[in-house]
Amino acid sequence: MILRIKVTILFVITYLFSQSALSQKEETVKNIFNEALTNGQAYTWLDYLSNQIGGRLSGSPEAAAAVNFTKQVMDTLGFDKVYLQEVMVPHWVRGKKEIARVNSKKRGDVSLDICALGNTIGTGPAGITAEIVIVDSFDALAKLGKKGVKGKIVFFNVPMNQQYYYTFRAYSDAVKYRVNGASEAAQYGAVAVVVRSLSTAEDDFPHTGTCQYKEGTTPIPANAISVKSALLLAEILKVEPNLRLYLESHCQMLPDVLSYNVVGEITGSERPNEYIIVGGHLDAWDLGDGAHDDGAGCVQSIEALHLLTKLGIQPKHSIRVVMFINEENGLRGGKKYAEIAQEKGENHLIAIESDAGGCTPQAFSVDAPEKQYFQQVKAVASFLRPYGMQIIKDGGGADISPLKPQGTTLIGLRCDSQRYFDYHHSAADTFDKVNKRELHLGAAAMASLVYLLDTNW
Amino acid sequence: MILRIKVTILFVITYLFSQSALSQKEETVKNIFNEALTNGQAYTWLDYLSNQIGGRLSGSPEAAAAVNFTKQVMDTLGFDKVYLQEVMVPHWVRGKKEIARVNSKKRGDVSLDICALGNTIGTGPAGITAEIVIVDSFDALAKLGKKGVKGKIVFFNVPMNQQYYYTFRAYSDAVKYRVNGASEAAQYGAVAVVVRSLSTAEDDFPHTGTCQYKEGTTPIPANAISVKSALLLAEILKVEPNLRLYLESHCQMLPDVLSYNVVGEITGSERPNEYIIVGGHLDAWDLGDGAHDDGAGCVQSIEALHLLTKLGIQPKHSIRVVMFINEENGLRGGKKYAEIAQEKGENHLIAIESDAGGCTPQAFSVDAPEKQYFQQVKAVASFLRPYGMQIIKDGGGADISPLKPQGTTLIGLRCDSQRYFDYHHSAADTFDKVNKRELHLGAAAMASLVYLLDTNW
Repeated sequence: MILRIKVTILFVITYLFSQSALSQKEETVKNIFNEALTNGQAYTWLDYLSNQIGGRLSGSPEAAAAVNFTKQVMDTLGFDKVYLQEVMVPHWVRGKKEIARVNSKKRGDVSLDICALGNTIGTGPAGITAEIVIVDSFDALAKLGKKGVKGKIVFFNVPMNQQYYYTFRAYSDAVKYRVNGASEAAQYGAVAVVVRSLSTAEDDFPHTGTCQYKEGTTPIPANAISVKSALLLAEILKVEPNLRLYLESHCQMLPDVLSYNVVGEITGSERPNEYIIVGGHLDAWDLGDGAHDDGAGCVQSIEALHLLTKLGIQPKHSIRVVMFINEENGLRGGKKYAEIAQEKGENHLIAIESDAGGCTPQAFSVDAPEKQYFQQVKAVASFLRPYGMQIIKDGGGADISPLKPQGTTLIGLRCDSQRYFDYHHSAADTFDKVNKRELHLGAAAMASLVYLLDTNW
Repeated sequence: MILRIKVTILFVITYLFSQSALSQKEETVKNIFNEALTNGQAYTWLDYLSNQIGGRLSGSPEAAAAVNFTKQVMDTLGFDKVYLQEVMVPHWVRGKKEIARVNSKKRGDVSLDICALGNTIGTGPAGITAEIVIVDSFDALAKLGKKGVKGKIVFFNVPMNQQYYYTFRAYSDAVKYRVNGASEAAQYGAVAVVVRSLSTAEDDFPHTGTCQYKEGTTPIPANAISVKSALLLAEILKVEPNLRLYLESHCQMLPDVLSYNVVGEITGSERPNEYIIVGGHLDAWDLGDGAHDDGAGCVQSIEALHLLTKLGIQPKHSIRVVMFINEENGLRGGKKYAEIAQEKGENHLIAIESDAGGCTPQAFSVDAPEKQYFQQVKAVASFLRPYGMQIIKDGGGADISPLKPQGTTLIGLRCDSQRYFDYHHSAADTFDKVNKRELHLGAAAMASLVYLLDTNW
């Protein structure tokens, strides 16, 4: 009887304790969201980063200004440490606006909207004129072979598959033409390539992005063409298959320059050498203002730590915010950060990246080294559900991926993807495309996840 | 032994049958989404409705044009019937642009961005000048009483609560000041009211919407003021509490005019007198183009039926699309539709409304007359989950609410609400704020729900 009473009392105490612990977590998460939605500053920072600085490609004056600006912001937020981490970055410059023109028998001179792909060589001022050969896959290119391709400009006309609900899936499918198209075409003697923009919108904006020259292949000029221009060009080619294209681009790769990751830290009260980090990448393509990609992720990450300090949350582990440099065309910042972490013996438990735009957050995707770590993240899902967030298994993010060999659990903030690729890597990626509440929800979700994992880990 | 074999065979057959039935439904839903995302026309229709017709308040030439346009569209889509349903609607006109001005000692003449609220009386060309009294609730107003209010202009400065994740909740809380503010203030002898706009954005757009004069109270001019102007006015009032406001508005209510609901129908193959309907409201406030509210819902509803016919889906029940007229300032279309349904003895099983903007769809909210009907809707949830959709319990929609006494299960399409109230009822509600994929996902979700419920009911 006494034993039963004891057990019952113990049960009641345990239950009450767990309930109050639960309530405190719920309460704290609620406070984080309330603070973000009413007094969040991320939107104001993003306004500056987008409208006052703009596109900030690695090595550019704008990238340097972005390093200074984000460091200055962090300096005002009461973090324990704010510092720069030296990173040598590639310095690719676009030069004068690109030109693409065909002379159609039916339509006369037709200008097409193109832009050079990142890291590629230009045609130089003389330009290139050659016959166009249109293909819809690498298989089609291989079938044409040297005979069909040599001396020509290959036009990869492969649309993003609009049927996927999650647009990143369509991007993953089609991105190989942008990244490897030039090398593949060069193998067969092509003199240049034009790649249909990776875009969900049908408009005049060409979408840039990195192109890689495979070792052993001849570098040739590579350009993106807007979806509307691609549709038009394909239409003309139907009736004028031997059409010639004039291409002119002035981009070039200059020597590497010194740049920086920007790091802010709240030092852990109990386990200062164990780290939970949040971050985004500071560099952005030059055509737009990098508002969604990845200004949003940067300001959300700063805001995440800011929310913790504002609400007086003292974490057990050290929490860092990292502005990675050079995600877009080199990943040097992410690699350097992981290298230094390794050297210093810093134990990175968890790395969270926001690099999927600033739209309404929907999930955290988790790439855990072991099942138990996924379960530990999943265990906090109920606290995020009222804010539309789920925990799913999937990739973390590019900048944090070099931490994977160190056993870090990688987590990506996944946002509503429907309109992201309308803007991505194009002149349309501007501040007005970002909604304040949607942006601040992402910051609150990241801050909440850091708080919950710091408590549970 | 034989019995066991028989049972096993029966089980296997049942299992296979259920699996193939399941697959067919999954397959059909997938086809609906694929078709909507690749060949959907709703976006093109919305372009016309927004940019060629624009704001289409009941009784206006634009409303008449919208009736004609949507009927013409439906006429081309191969429905079994397309017809107009006569509805007498109120005819409120705004007249010349409103003026609001204070003369501040410190700042000189300050113009404020205001607009008349729907259905209200104007000041006329002479305008009204009176002292402003600022309140943050009806309680505060009551405390001031006649002594503090008589002869003054009451300024309801009540923001939408940004802390709610679901912004419609904040709207529901604050909308009473817009709807009833004038009547409440008139009780105490106020000469006019100015109501802070129901907006999640901090900008210069005043947001209009219906105001109702309670019987027995004196109608007084009622206006919305933009959030920025409201903040500014409140700021000035802090140091100049006796500030006088000049208001001028030219709106008036004219006699009712004849308008129409537009109805399209696919007649049921098995139960033609049992109806599942989808709809939105065709009228929209005059300040913007009514792209989100509710052009989106209209074109999604037409598209929903269009998708069914395109994919050769022959429903058992009759499926109707209804463009309701006059949701915004009278609900006459919704009431008339229900009245006629009752008269004709049409059995309306289910009514689905899209009137929450054209952003990414997230759920169907169900208001069922009995638990079993909610369960029947809930039973199809698994088919919609891959498209981010849930089934929840909540309200259906204004236009379909008059069907409730007939035992109809009411369902609302619930969309991402984060940015909707940035635009709602203001000049910012324009076509460029609607994303094509997000809009088409809503149409596909509605078409899929109709297909699934038609099959299961």
